[in-house]
Amino acid sequence: MDTRRLEAFSDGVLAIIITIMVLEMKVPHGADFAALWPLWPVFLSYILSFVYIGIYWNNHHHLLHAAKRVNASIMWANSHLLFWLSLIPFATGWMGENGFAPAPTAIYGVVLLMSAVAYWLLQRTIIREHGQDSVLTRAVGIDVKGKISPVLYLAAIVSTFYQQWLAQALYVLVALMWLLPDRRIERTVVESRERDD
Amino acid sequence: MDTRRLEAFSDGVLAIIITIMVLEMKVPHGADFAALWPLWPVFLSYILSFVYIGIYWNNHHHLLHAAKRVNASIMWANSHLLFWLSLIPFATGWMGENGFAPAPTAIYGVVLLMSAVAYWLLQRTIIREHGQDSVLTRAVGIDVKGKISPVLYLAAIVSTFYQQWLAQALYVLVALMWLLPDRRIERTVVESRERDD
Amino acid sequence: MDTRRLEAFSDGVLAIIITIMVLEMKVPHGADFAALWPLWPVFLSYILSFVYIGIYWNNHHHLLHAAKRVNASIMWANSHLLFWLSLIPFATGWMGENGFAPAPTAIYGVVLLMSAVAYWLLQRTIIREHGQDSVLTRAVGIDVKGKISPVLYLAAIVSTFYQQWLAQALYVLVALMWLLPDRRIERTVVESRERDD
Amino acid sequence: MDTRRLEAFSDGVLAIIITIMVLEMKVPHGADFAALWPLWPVFLSYILSFVYIGIYWNNHHHLLHAAKRVNASIMWANSHLLFWLSLIPFATGWMGENGFAPAPTAIYGVVLLMSAVAYWLLQRTIIREHGQDSVLTRAVGIDVKGKISPVLYLAAIVSTFYQQWLAQALYVLVALMWLLPDRRIERTVVESRERDD
Repeated sequence: MDTRRLEAFSDGVLAIIITIMVLEMKVPHGADFAALWPLWPVFLSYILSFVYIGIYWNNHHHLLHAAKRVNASIMWANSHLLFWLSLIPFATGWMGENGFAPAPTAIYGVVLLMSAVAYWLLQRTIIREHGQDSVLTRAVGIDVKGKISPVLYLAAIVSTFYQQWLAQALYVLVALMWLLPDRRIERTVVESRERDD
Repeated sequence: MDTRRLEAFSDGVLAIIITIMVLEMKVPHGADFAALWPLWPVFLSYILSFVYIGIYWNNHHHLLHAAKRVNASIMWANSHLLFWLSLIPFATGWMGENGFAPAPTAIYGVVLLMSAVAYWLLQRTIIREHGQDSVLTRAVGIDVKGKISPVLYLAAIVSTFYQQWLAQALYVLVALMWLLPDRRIERTVVESRERDD
Repeated sequence: MDTRRLEAFSDGVLAIIITIMVLEMKVPHGADFAALWPLWPVFLSYILSFVYIGIYWNNHHHLLHAAKRVNASIMWANSHLLFWLSLIPFATGWMGENGFAPAPTAIYGVVLLMSAVAYWLLQRTIIREHGQDSVLTRAVGIDVKGKISPVLYLAAIVSTFYQQWLAQALYVLVALMWLLPDRRIERTVVESRERDD
Repeated sequence: MDTRRLEAFSDGVLAIIITIMVLEMKVPHGADFAALWPLWPVFLSYILSFVYIGIYWNNHHHLLHAAKRVNASIMWANSHLLFWLSLIPFATGWMGENGFAPAPTAIYGVVLLMSAVAYWLLQRTIIREHGQDSVLTRAVGIDVKGKISPVLYLAAIVSTFYQQWLAQALYVLVALMWLLPDRRIERTVVESRERDD
């Protein structure tokens, strides 16, 4: 079974997640610029989450691109990832509407942490299906970013109760770290294909 | 006519159903963890329904994968299934917001029951188009899980008025039963192809 | 330019239209069956509109399947159709929440009428691109149903101010007429291909 | 890496943006035509934004059609465009609900302006990947419309504080200018292919 329909379904869910988040940005009642002011935290949360979903779509794209076939375990590992990502609009809305208060900020971190764990599980499941010697295994390599991110999320979750803004800084830091896309996979696949030719 | 666009449309509808359910989880007004507490039944309902939609997507994927062509009856049987599945967010929201009260729990069961009936009808319609001797017919076989599920849904619908939590236990049981994906079809298709080679 | 991406975009929009309609069915506050009672008109409107969107998806599928290429006029004729169809959730919600009162029922008819006109325009635009002698032209033929429907919508729009339920009966009648899918196109395409072989 | 999944994801996001805008058109409480009257500005805003999203989908389709491969920069330039377009439902809702008041009209213009800038950046990024001599570069040419639009948006943003309706007229003007689709790319690609044959 190929990866086509799994990609299509994931694209659909990610496209909806990224778009319904904007529905949390309720149209203000006033008609002047002052009416927009209270929306700043909601808007900043939206940008942060938009970037995170964009990163997941990007990395998911590369990961599935390197995969050749899909089995039931991969399907469920993928659904598990989509479940945690589907909670991002809720966590974003709660954090934004409360001006980055500690509890919502911590929950936002928990959702990011669980998404990272779910992505790691999906990666493991795909590698197991394709064998330790596959292109994919070599491409993922030691996966430094994938190992640092959960640690930083944990640090953010704890720190928000002491230094509210430290957590936000850490979320932005992880996002920036990932904005540099997962070229390892891209490069290794290309190299491997060139070697095969 | 091939199955491509039917799959794409179904993927779209299922992706939206699974995602808009999270909109029922309204962002709470308080900014502390206590504000999340009343959301537990809504969250549990969301997990249950997310798993159910995931199961339907998974089985739908396998079923359509085994199908070779689509006619008007299959299209309408598919739309009929999507109709019942589209009511799951409503039933989930009603059940979650009322803490698994009997009436919403029963309605949730009715929606699951009708979805199961609609899936069975779709399966029948596809088999009729492909002939009794087709790979698909052998793959579906006696379909034990497809026959047990409606009985358990019915039991849940009745039981909720006597033992509120028994219904939830039955819904979870059926979900667990199906989480083991429909490998019969997968396996028979593979075997059949190998035999043909 | 082929029809693939036009189909994908239309599938996406139709999948969302058909799914967000269910959001108009607000979760009731009570936890007993009586709380569902006021939702009957909303539910009936939802079924009617679900069937209509299903019919449009079905016919759109057949129409685009017969088309071979897409130009800018076809793209805009398609967007024009999607515009009117996108108003169906609004019209459905207004009609349902007001128990099929005359004004909402008339507006619902106007949206259906304009959708039918837009579909006819799309059909014309595709035929013009493919030439009068194409398979498509022969397939569409004299298009009896496409000519009767607008007349019945007009009759419904006028009648609702005199006999409220006559309009609903006419909407159901048109839907039933179309549920018999557009086999003309399907058949003619198949025949034409067999002749070419 | 080919453009298929980028197109699919963009189609999904654009389909959702164009459809959720209609959710801003809240079902009115009254059941007579008078209840529709206050919705006119919302409806007009919806039409305008629907046309704009349609134009972006159309041009995006042509641009990606001319592209042959996708890299990480193109993916992020595309996400950046989708970000600004995702704010259109919010800006549309705010402008519509306040009867085209100056501040919301200016914000609407800012979102259109930033979308135009993001589209221009995406175009640049794709051209850089494909080389200055590519079909695409020749097709885009001097891009008069792409250069005039931001100027007109700026004029609209400033003018709305002096002549409220001038801004709307300018938005309509730019939309009309683009409704004539980007045939340059289409034509040059066709010519180039014919020359290659």
